[in-house]
Amino acid sequence: MKIVVIGAGGDVGRPVADELGRDGKHEVIRVGRTRGDHQVDITRDDSVSALFEQIGPIDAIVAAAGNVILAPVEKMTAADFHRGLQDKLLSQVRVALIGQHYLSDGGSITLTSGIAVDDPIAQGSHAAASNAGIEGFVRAAACDFRRGIRINAVSPTMLLESMNRFGRFFPGYEGVPATRVAMAYRRSVEGVHSGRVYRVGH
Amino acid sequence: MKIVVIGAGGDVGRPVADELGRDGKHEVIRVGRTRGDHQVDITRDDSVSALFEQIGPIDAIVAAAGNVILAPVEKMTAADFHRGLQDKLLSQVRVALIGQHYLSDGGSITLTSGIAVDDPIAQGSHAAASNAGIEGFVRAAACDFRRGIRINAVSPTMLLESMNRFGRFFPGYEGVPATRVAMAYRRSVEGVHSGRVYRVGH
Repeated sequence: MKIVVIGAGGDVGRPVADELGRDGKHEVIRVGRTRGDHQVDITRDDSVSALFEQIGPIDAIVAAAGNVILAPVEKMTAADFHRGLQDKLLSQVRVALIGQHYLSDGGSITLTSGIAVDDPIAQGSHAAASNAGIEGFVRAAACDFRRGIRINAVSPTMLLESMNRFGRFFPGYEGVPATRVAMAYRRSVEGVHSGRVYRVGH
Repeated sequence: MKIVVIGAGGDVGRPVADELGRDGKHEVIRVGRTRGDHQVDITRDDSVSALFEQIGPIDAIVAAAGNVILAPVEKMTAADFHRGLQDKLLSQVRVALIGQHYLSDGGSITLTSGIAVDDPIAQGSHAAASNAGIEGFVRAAACDFRRGIRINAVSPTMLLESMNRFGRFFPGYEGVPATRVAMAYRRSVEGVHSGRVYRVGH
């Protein structure tokens, strides 16, 4: 399969690209904001369209990019929340909506949510909303796609590799190695499910 | 209690305002886009701020407003999806984020999602995302508010009163009378729960 991994320089995307490329079964195209085989700004339609035009027909898309806003709900403004929606929820949906037109019949899309929707954390009201939105989109789009296109999401708990940066938001969380998270993406890409949310480490 | 009902001219908001005002226990302030005691455009910060400034301190906020985009996922653009997010998810969150500062200690916020997140419908990928986002926000914000502020959502199935307009999107759905949906809002406003999603008719 020809697989595009968006966010391939990140804590999740890098091990996903490694996992999918490990056994030589797939051609993995690594896409980052500033690094990788191609660059993209997933907050912009024109950048995402240009990316897929350059790459041409593909069999699978993985999106492991986009940031959430962490802020106490009592200090959060609608502008903060809007910016967060743009960066995480809308960006991943944009990749799916534009990327679908470059997918072969039976191709797949795998998006990335996160534990904060099932297990709220302090300052996590935006994270929960964006991640829940991604999961809602995945569940409904799965019923609506034609041509056998599948769509799933992976929802990791905190990665061990991210503990230095995010551990203080997840007190008492064990964390999970990114290599385990990466396996869930392979399950989505090579499997037959659609509309599923694969929870890893929670 | 002094209760603000936003969307009080709509199929959900009107019976909610009627239900909450029925027994004379509460002062119900009906707010609409063009009608009611006050008018507001919930897609704008300045309009929402002006509304709450005019009304002053309150004990409960109900938001039953905002529209979803219904479109086949294969034809949906990121711009469509963005417009839908603005109109439903971000608008209700804006009401909560701005309105919280006018709530008394122990006050409550009740938002409105919908069945399409649990039970995907054709053309419903945006509806599912916005409604899921509202529910995710509610669950996480409930853990983050101080001052005893509670927040819940009501998720109705299709209303009998909306069947003429939306019935074709809900084949085989029984529908529920708006008066039953309205009771869930009373349960949120007068109860003690927080972070709950009250599903009505599904």
